[in-house]
Amino acid sequence: MSDRYLDFANTGVGGWLTGALGLPRPAPLKRRADAGAGLTGPLLLGPGGDSRLTPVLTRLAAENGREVQTEWSPDVRYGGLVFDASACVDALSAQALYRFFHQAVRSVAEHGRILVIGLPPETMADAEGEAIQRGLEGFVRSLAKEARRSIGVHLVYVEPGAEAAAETTLSFLLSPRSAYVSGQPILVSTPVTEAMDETEHAGRRVLVTGGSRGIGEAIVRLFVAEGARVTALDVPGAQQALASLSAELGVDVLTLDITAPDAIPALLADARAKGGYDVVIHNAGVTRDRTLARMEPREWDSVIAVNLTAPLAMTQALVEGGEMRRNGRIIAVSSLSGIAGNMGQTNYALSKAGWIGAVRRLAPRLASQGITVNAVAPGFIETQMTAAIPFAIREAGRRMNSMGQGGHPVDVAETIAWMADARSGGVNGQVVRVCGQSLLGA
Amino acid sequence: MSDRYLDFANTGVGGWLTGALGLPRPAPLKRRADAGAGLTGPLLLGPGGDSRLTPVLTRLAAENGREVQTEWSPDVRYGGLVFDASACVDALSAQALYRFFHQAVRSVAEHGRILVIGLPPETMADAEGEAIQRGLEGFVRSLAKEARRSIGVHLVYVEPGAEAAAETTLSFLLSPRSAYVSGQPILVSTPVTEAMDETEHAGRRVLVTGGSRGIGEAIVRLFVAEGARVTALDVPGAQQALASLSAELGVDVLTLDITAPDAIPALLADARAKGGYDVVIHNAGVTRDRTLARMEPREWDSVIAVNLTAPLAMTQALVEGGEMRRNGRIIAVSSLSGIAGNMGQTNYALSKAGWIGAVRRLAPRLASQGITVNAVAPGFIETQMTAAIPFAIREAGRRMNSMGQGGHPVDVAETIAWMADARSGGVNGQVVRVCGQSLLGA
Repeated sequence: MSDRYLDFANTGVGGWLTGALGLPRPAPLKRRADAGAGLTGPLLLGPGGDSRLTPVLTRLAAENGREVQTEWSPDVRYGGLVFDASACVDALSAQALYRFFHQAVRSVAEHGRILVIGLPPETMADAEGEAIQRGLEGFVRSLAKEARRSIGVHLVYVEPGAEAAAETTLSFLLSPRSAYVSGQPILVSTPVTEAMDETEHAGRRVLVTGGSRGIGEAIVRLFVAEGARVTALDVPGAQQALASLSAELGVDVLTLDITAPDAIPALLADARAKGGYDVVIHNAGVTRDRTLARMEPREWDSVIAVNLTAPLAMTQALVEGGEMRRNGRIIAVSSLSGIAGNMGQTNYALSKAGWIGAVRRLAPRLASQGITVNAVAPGFIETQMTAAIPFAIREAGRRMNSMGQGGHPVDVAETIAWMADARSGGVNGQVVRVCGQSLLGA
Repeated sequence: MSDRYLDFANTGVGGWLTGALGLPRPAPLKRRADAGAGLTGPLLLGPGGDSRLTPVLTRLAAENGREVQTEWSPDVRYGGLVFDASACVDALSAQALYRFFHQAVRSVAEHGRILVIGLPPETMADAEGEAIQRGLEGFVRSLAKEARRSIGVHLVYVEPGAEAAAETTLSFLLSPRSAYVSGQPILVSTPVTEAMDETEHAGRRVLVTGGSRGIGEAIVRLFVAEGARVTALDVPGAQQALASLSAELGVDVLTLDITAPDAIPALLADARAKGGYDVVIHNAGVTRDRTLARMEPREWDSVIAVNLTAPLAMTQALVEGGEMRRNGRIIAVSSLSGIAGNMGQTNYALSKAGWIGAVRRLAPRLASQGITVNAVAPGFIETQMTAAIPFAIREAGRRMNSMGQGGHPVDVAETIAWMADARSGGVNGQVVRVCGQSLLGA
């Protein structure tokens, strides 16, 4: 689970050696728990501070003890650069995008952030406008590959009128919580519920499947720390791990094989006893990797049942049974394999790509009930599972991304927590990669 | 422009050496012009031959002197496997997908093809159906990575009622014309015009921008060979190359800087003189690679003008001027960089991602005029441009795909010719990568 190369490359001797040999020297990312994490300088807002997001950004900067500046200065190290490209409707107006970043891009501090704000391309008046706004994605993905390895670069399409709803998204992307997310386009649309004066997670009922270890455990720990009332669900075989989590954190546990015939009644009974769930996180997943010619029927079936059909049936039962509360959140853990495919994972990739389809279907349908549906797609995350991968393949997986390292389970948990936030009603139908901008894709 | 490693690895000594050293040994792909190209065995159609595409596939097989079989036999080497997954609406029915390929996948001949037919996910009755149909994409992309390096694997979503319109697409994918395309999902929808008894390209008026060399020249040559009446457009600096193409092939030439102030009137005058165009291929493109901090304003501007805004303006002028004929085709050359972003290409990636937005906008709007709008996104194609890339980077680009080699300009031209086919009215709004299933993406 430890990345010894990263550790070594950041020692004195290791730094000298990697430099002399021309080897990559990834910078350790700063997460929420790390010393010195957070905005390390002011936000520079372009063009000329003229943005519909100015009120939100000013508030966010102030919460971080920073200010928003609108004139670039060569003497300042900025914690973040934010460019509102909403006025880029043709090639001429898009020159402002070039001018701003051409000048400012080298002024971002280590661990800083770069954000481009756009309008949903399909809302533009003509083909050139749609092309430029859609083109921002190519721009941002390229800039994310050019930026230093600790700097995340993002594109946020904010629907007209959804500016206030963008606060949790901008806050997440400008914070160390998004350390391992980069190069992602994210849409913020009109929230599914009226903005309520709610705290992020405190007191919310959260169900985490596969919650006993790995990414699931990280999710449980994060939501507990945020004051949520968490139920960790896992299979009977994980009972001991669940019990010690419960003893340590005081979480509820639910021992259940979600593919069992009586899983749905048991889940509903539990949900009913708790007065329903605010947040359901479908994290439980299995792999049974084998090329298709060698794959056993049960390897095919179990992966699809655990990863796709059981959580879909759970979702349906909870929603139709009235056990998803208003302003609810359903979040699935998809995968880079579901996007790009992967050798030996026809079953897994089908199940994980399947969730992309399920999100697309469920998000607009459940919006009327005030529920959002989203997914995260992790790339290479350092867990017991990846620790078992042979060295050379593991090294390739770790280094083939813009951060030059694997992510941590907490990076996935932080991304889920942003989507789950009670104030994130404008984040709906999104599939966001947590992969350090892995080179892999489709 | 030659891939010496590929050539060497396929000699006797080279084959022994690469085997002994565990190096990749990519197979030379078979294109239309190569001896022995084409279906080398029968088509196996699953499940049990029960498919709405049976009539089309039977006709295609017969044209290739092959038959369609519906029962797998261990003794047959199939030229192609086709599985109609239209009945896969839940996990249970999707087991048929596993059973078919588990048994048959090793029976595909070298240079064979694997096709999965699906229904557009959003047309399914429920979330599980949409998830399974969308999940096919993960399945197909994984299988494409497992298949031998000469075998293309594809997913074709055929809208109900558009089965007859799928003929050109299935024909392309089952033929050597698609040698360097793999792992792509393609939608065939209701054609934009009534199916007409037209030949593919003969007699059609085709404009190819950037037509004097590289990919553009390959496009010109292919359309000329197909009997189209081609106009090759290029900048004044390419006049000599244009003249010799004209002398050799008898094509019309149009010497024009498409970004010049008088470009549109000149284009319209030419189009009017020819009675309008059936097919316009926006291939002209430039790169001015530099990290954003070092990029000059003119490097930003020229890339966006040549690659995006000039061809958009040309499209608008031709359509509004009535110079695009009914059953017309507009095809842009996008790029893998527009999908994934690329270091040093913020300008280029914006322009190429921009075309993805333009296709999305224009395809539904021009459908009512009987015109389709599509794009190809080439990956690593062996040209003078790629020959100039430093060796190590070039090698990485060449090998990091399921075919283990770079594509040829003709591979891009063939993909464009399929989209441009007068009978391809059901192919609209598509962006298809020509990249040998490059690992790179987003």
